[in-house]
Amino acid sequence: MNNFIFQNPTKLIFGKGQIARLSKELPKGSKILVTFGGGSVKKNGVYEQVTAALEGFDYQEFWGIEPNPKVETLRKAVEICKRDGVDFLLAVGGGSVLDGTKLIAAAAVVDTDAWELVCNPKLYGGTLPFASVMTLPATGSEMNRGAVISNLATGEKYAFYNTYPQFSILDPQTTFSLPPYQVACGLADTFVHVMEQYLTATDIAPLMDRWAEGVLQTIIEVAPKVRADQTDYDAMATYMLSATMGLNGFIAMGVPQDWATHMIGHEITALTALTHGHSLVVVLPAVMDVMREQKGDKILQYGQRVWGITEGSYDERIDKTIAATEEFFRSLGLQTRLSELNIGKEVAEQIVLRFKERGTLLGENSNIDYLTVEKILNQRL
Amino acid sequence: MNNFIFQNPTKLIFGKGQIARLSKELPKGSKILVTFGGGSVKKNGVYEQVTAALEGFDYQEFWGIEPNPKVETLRKAVEICKRDGVDFLLAVGGGSVLDGTKLIAAAAVVDTDAWELVCNPKLYGGTLPFASVMTLPATGSEMNRGAVISNLATGEKYAFYNTYPQFSILDPQTTFSLPPYQVACGLADTFVHVMEQYLTATDIAPLMDRWAEGVLQTIIEVAPKVRADQTDYDAMATYMLSATMGLNGFIAMGVPQDWATHMIGHEITALTALTHGHSLVVVLPAVMDVMREQKGDKILQYGQRVWGITEGSYDERIDKTIAATEEFFRSLGLQTRLSELNIGKEVAEQIVLRFKERGTLLGENSNIDYLTVEKILNQRL
Repeated sequence: MNNFIFQNPTKLIFGKGQIARLSKELPKGSKILVTFGGGSVKKNGVYEQVTAALEGFDYQEFWGIEPNPKVETLRKAVEICKRDGVDFLLAVGGGSVLDGTKLIAAAAVVDTDAWELVCNPKLYGGTLPFASVMTLPATGSEMNRGAVISNLATGEKYAFYNTYPQFSILDPQTTFSLPPYQVACGLADTFVHVMEQYLTATDIAPLMDRWAEGVLQTIIEVAPKVRADQTDYDAMATYMLSATMGLNGFIAMGVPQDWATHMIGHEITALTALTHGHSLVVVLPAVMDVMREQKGDKILQYGQRVWGITEGSYDERIDKTIAATEEFFRSLGLQTRLSELNIGKEVAEQIVLRFKERGTLLGENSNIDYLTVEKILNQRL
Repeated sequence: MNNFIFQNPTKLIFGKGQIARLSKELPKGSKILVTFGGGSVKKNGVYEQVTAALEGFDYQEFWGIEPNPKVETLRKAVEICKRDGVDFLLAVGGGSVLDGTKLIAAAAVVDTDAWELVCNPKLYGGTLPFASVMTLPATGSEMNRGAVISNLATGEKYAFYNTYPQFSILDPQTTFSLPPYQVACGLADTFVHVMEQYLTATDIAPLMDRWAEGVLQTIIEVAPKVRADQTDYDAMATYMLSATMGLNGFIAMGVPQDWATHMIGHEITALTALTHGHSLVVVLPAVMDVMREQKGDKILQYGQRVWGITEGSYDERIDKTIAATEEFFRSLGLQTRLSELNIGKEVAEQIVLRFKERGTLLGENSNIDYLTVEKILNQRL
């Protein structure tokens, strides 16, 4: 097991009716900026619950943080924070709203431009405290430090790290009215988050392996229930909790991690606006196949424990395991080939070129260069 | 899934050589009381590492916190804290040292006697901050709020809750020299902690079930390695991490819990000084058997997923699962019957009488009364 330091101070407030607790959790006397997405929270009752709980607080609203939050939008919120002396941020919505809010919170306390902060972590100079009401289970942003920010002008998309949310409120009932496509992408995103932390080598941290497999098994079991009835409270609660636990560090103690699928997927999204979770299911099967020599033993462990695959030669079992994984993604209603998504070879070529120019090396052993990325993408045309 | 609020702010610092980080983690300018047990840390190099890291800090040492920490001992440390203006506590040792330190930290900031604090949680009035260097994987105390305190004068043993340790440093190398009996009891303690949180009803929190089963599977797999070679770093690290994750709230989100085995086991320890973990393996098989009507479905799930038991009638599978559990405890070298431990019927009778007098009702449904406790103990004579 690798040495590690783990600390996750976020207070997770989970369950029916918990949004009302906002009034207890928000710091009294604060100047609060409440950040929102496009307005779906006005249709599902979340906005009413939030504003009811905010009665008596000094707050204003900022609307319009889009999926794959754009720095151009976030800069406007940063200006408001500085102008009005905002000292607490509350994100209400999905992972994109919270991701964007993490950057707003950090950019509000420095003179640096928000995109410079994303590009150069050394410029980070602290943050306003922030919290969330999370309505879309997928990114785990509600209980981690990470955010992914896009730049419209440059077509770039990068990770940014702030501190943890002070608290996050998750009421599974807020997910009942999500578009089924977003739910499918959220299930896929959760699944791949776990795979990125898990699918490296065997025998490093056996307990973390079991916990990662446990999230995967849970997602596989609950996905059909979720897709059959999005108002099944227990199913949606299980999905929601799995999404949080899939990327809050709980399954990452003492293990190496991969994240090649995410890095390649981010480029697809940056260039085509394909939903993040969907981009991952396109990439992952090919990462498994192309990296089978390095990851073979772990793929077999995953195949056996999660899919019950025990028959066949070493390579046959790997093939079956990759096929089961891709079939699961397709069972969510998600296409897994670029051509099915009308994304052509020129996008793949542009992504390869970007990795070539940057010289980035991906994967747990930093050995996935642009030529390997090319192999991976060529498999998915 | 039940509603829940989860927050665990402890910083977990895990791995080889991490004790040296103490000098970075301890608050500068504090007056520190370092608490110890009986002196084993002077034989295994831990004391040297701790004092090296404490160079330049203003600290004093308090020795002699015993297994099943006695309030009589802890009161002496409370006096020192008050007399010398101690403002930070560092526990170095096993779960008992840290448990005792949690009570010292709370009693140091109030005028109430320490035992009154244990008996009446309403008298809790805050705490000195505290942290630990944990050297015996078992109780999970390094990452939870709980402590168990004994009273020599009254022969009582109760749980006490403070806040979380600020940080806990776990270097698996510190466990290499533990007495094998303590290791066996620690493995058993971890196993039963998980069972207490898991063995209630099915289909409440599927992800938590998977994670609980994951800890159990990990302990079952690693136990023979640990017992074969206590200097196997990876095995000891896996055991140590499992002990922490078994009782830090990570597997308890949204689930009911039992704890009847612990409540009965505590009485055995209070009356006979049998090591805590050992008392649990005596009690658990009988709790499973006597409560089989209520817990049957979950026992079957546990039997199937953890032990691979799928053949036989409903009751046969329950019997096999209980037998596998008891056999695992015996494989640790632990006797599972009171008679094997020279504990007679009179102890069982006294425990039943205590539960009768207190009117305590145990278990996830608060339906285990003293008559059921009698049935449970009579099975274990």
